[in-house]
Amino acid sequence: MSIAVIYGGTRANGNTELLTERAIEGLTVDRIHLKEYTIRPIEDMRHDEKGFTELDDDYTAVLDRMLEHDILLFATPIYWYSMSGQMKNFIDRWSQTLRDKKRPHFRESMKTKTGYVIAVGGDEPNLKGLALVQQFQHIFGFMGTRYGGYVLGEGNRPGDILNDQVALHAADQLRSKLLQHGEKL
Amino acid sequence: MSIAVIYGGTRANGNTELLTERAIEGLTVDRIHLKEYTIRPIEDMRHDEKGFTELDDDYTAVLDRMLEHDILLFATPIYWYSMSGQMKNFIDRWSQTLRDKKRPHFRESMKTKTGYVIAVGGDEPNLKGLALVQQFQHIFGFMGTRYGGYVLGEGNRPGDILNDQVALHAADQLRSKLLQHGEKL
Amino acid sequence: MSIAVIYGGTRANGNTELLTERAIEGLTVDRIHLKEYTIRPIEDMRHDEKGFTELDDDYTAVLDRMLEHDILLFATPIYWYSMSGQMKNFIDRWSQTLRDKKRPHFRESMKTKTGYVIAVGGDEPNLKGLALVQQFQHIFGFMGTRYGGYVLGEGNRPGDILNDQVALHAADQLRSKLLQHGEKL
Amino acid sequence: MSIAVIYGGTRANGNTELLTERAIEGLTVDRIHLKEYTIRPIEDMRHDEKGFTELDDDYTAVLDRMLEHDILLFATPIYWYSMSGQMKNFIDRWSQTLRDKKRPHFRESMKTKTGYVIAVGGDEPNLKGLALVQQFQHIFGFMGTRYGGYVLGEGNRPGDILNDQVALHAADQLRSKLLQHGEKL
Repeated sequence: MSIAVIYGGTRANGNTELLTERAIEGLTVDRIHLKEYTIRPIEDMRHDEKGFTELDDDYTAVLDRMLEHDILLFATPIYWYSMSGQMKNFIDRWSQTLRDKKRPHFRESMKTKTGYVIAVGGDEPNLKGLALVQQFQHIFGFMGTRYGGYVLGEGNRPGDILNDQVALHAADQLRSKLLQHGEKL
Repeated sequence: MSIAVIYGGTRANGNTELLTERAIEGLTVDRIHLKEYTIRPIEDMRHDEKGFTELDDDYTAVLDRMLEHDILLFATPIYWYSMSGQMKNFIDRWSQTLRDKKRPHFRESMKTKTGYVIAVGGDEPNLKGLALVQQFQHIFGFMGTRYGGYVLGEGNRPGDILNDQVALHAADQLRSKLLQHGEKL
Repeated sequence: MSIAVIYGGTRANGNTELLTERAIEGLTVDRIHLKEYTIRPIEDMRHDEKGFTELDDDYTAVLDRMLEHDILLFATPIYWYSMSGQMKNFIDRWSQTLRDKKRPHFRESMKTKTGYVIAVGGDEPNLKGLALVQQFQHIFGFMGTRYGGYVLGEGNRPGDILNDQVALHAADQLRSKLLQHGEKL
Repeated sequence: MSIAVIYGGTRANGNTELLTERAIEGLTVDRIHLKEYTIRPIEDMRHDEKGFTELDDDYTAVLDRMLEHDILLFATPIYWYSMSGQMKNFIDRWSQTLRDKKRPHFRESMKTKTGYVIAVGGDEPNLKGLALVQQFQHIFGFMGTRYGGYVLGEGNRPGDILNDQVALHAADQLRSKLLQHGEKL
């Protein structure tokens, strides 16, 4: 079982990263920071005769790297009550991959994986972050990915998350789960 | 009362556009197609000493244009159970404007406006689009913008929306409301 | 195709009833008014050695009557952002029926049906009634019942619903659907 | 600060009770088990000339007892993705109290209180219990009650909840909060 974190945040050592790193402490993990790549927004060409134009950016490289792993942690700060625009652009592009003849097994591959969501926000994340939780429920549901669980944390200023005992403990529990996944190798 | 549509879609004459144009037929409206502009993702520098770096793109021009209007229609295809990444990038940048000393009245201005959401999706939008509806509830709630209502429509292939009688009628009703807003001038 | 309305309201000719009657105008429908029956709250005895005690009330008679039909319209006023307690008591008792040896085909039977929800509330039902919509999504999902759709209406004082044009039109559309169901006979 | 638990469950020592008792261990708490009382469903007479008929049951006694306390823990098993019918009947009756001339300060009183929700379910409560969480958000919002937080736990067979480490820890954290509330006396 190999693990990837897909980081959607834009601030180094932000609260989301602190919480996520606690969940993966001591584990071998591939950290994908979306902000380090150029991933352009999708252009919907599903119904275009010629299909999607391949965009010359980092998307497919990032996607292929993600697909190498069995456990996917989507870690994003809560921006305006959902995932960051950068993470959304990345996921929007999946529509293109679903029609990409070079990657015919995308959906099949996603069906074998387990996804988790880790999200930290400053405005009542345990209530106002639920739309994000449900959105991933639909995303994973569509792809057939198992929804392993989620951790919501509260934080605004850098380091705030360290005061959210419930979130920290949930991260610790997630770490235990990830270790068990590993033992199944 | 002046009206702007903020279009988040990427396909010309897509279902979302067809539905929205029905709601604004015969009205004077400023149509802002986000896809025609370069709007870079936010970099969170809220807690950086120097604050946000001004990015050299079209964001502030688009924002200022939106702020000239009283009624804002956010019209987006439902991509992966939420707004398009392009619209999300635009809204994410609001966090920057909230700290922009050149635009100290951003939130006050948004408090005087009424927002509507028009969204079309192909996978049970009336159920799986509700996370998007709730996300805008929180967005408008934070800004103090009145949530005038929303229209969800179903469509996948171009033109599908014309078969969704409930959505078409809801668009007609929205048009009546917008006309009434206008009469209050 | 035969149709039943399960009415959860407690007021004669209330807004929910007005809206529902519009959706079934001219159709042959079995109207089940839960308020006319005694349906006691469930006592959870799923894990009791002896199982559920049969309660001496009208529940099974009402259930059996509902099960005779193919299309089920759950029509309830929105009380405190969900269905009425009376309707909830009725549905809670389904847990008992799921273990009732005299009704071994309950779930199988529900899998063949299509359910609709009609709900009217006074406090922003299109936003604050969404939890009810999602609750029925889970209820129908568990039973395998197809979720045909829902109609949310706004109304507080008797007759208010007649001003909600979007809801009235959605009821008309539902009626068209029900007529089509009927033609499939 | 005095604390009441309003128990909506029907099984002695059920999972919800185990989790709740952990959150209040060692604290002085008034335990109100709704199943021990007769609380009839509401009859909506808000718009009746004579207003509500007083029902001869235990409702007002239970309500008055609840109102004596500052912190209210609503503890319910998740039945069909929401609170139990018994708890729903209790809350539905609040509509009557809002018009009860003998209790003119009901809403004012609720505004001074903090409410918590503790709910245990067997079918993915962290995803499918969110409608319940949001329903209480609206209930507390309407009354002006502060929403202190919620704890969702997973359990089906008696005692299952003791395996849900995240829920147990969240209950412990809630207990710390309740102790802090107490110190503010």
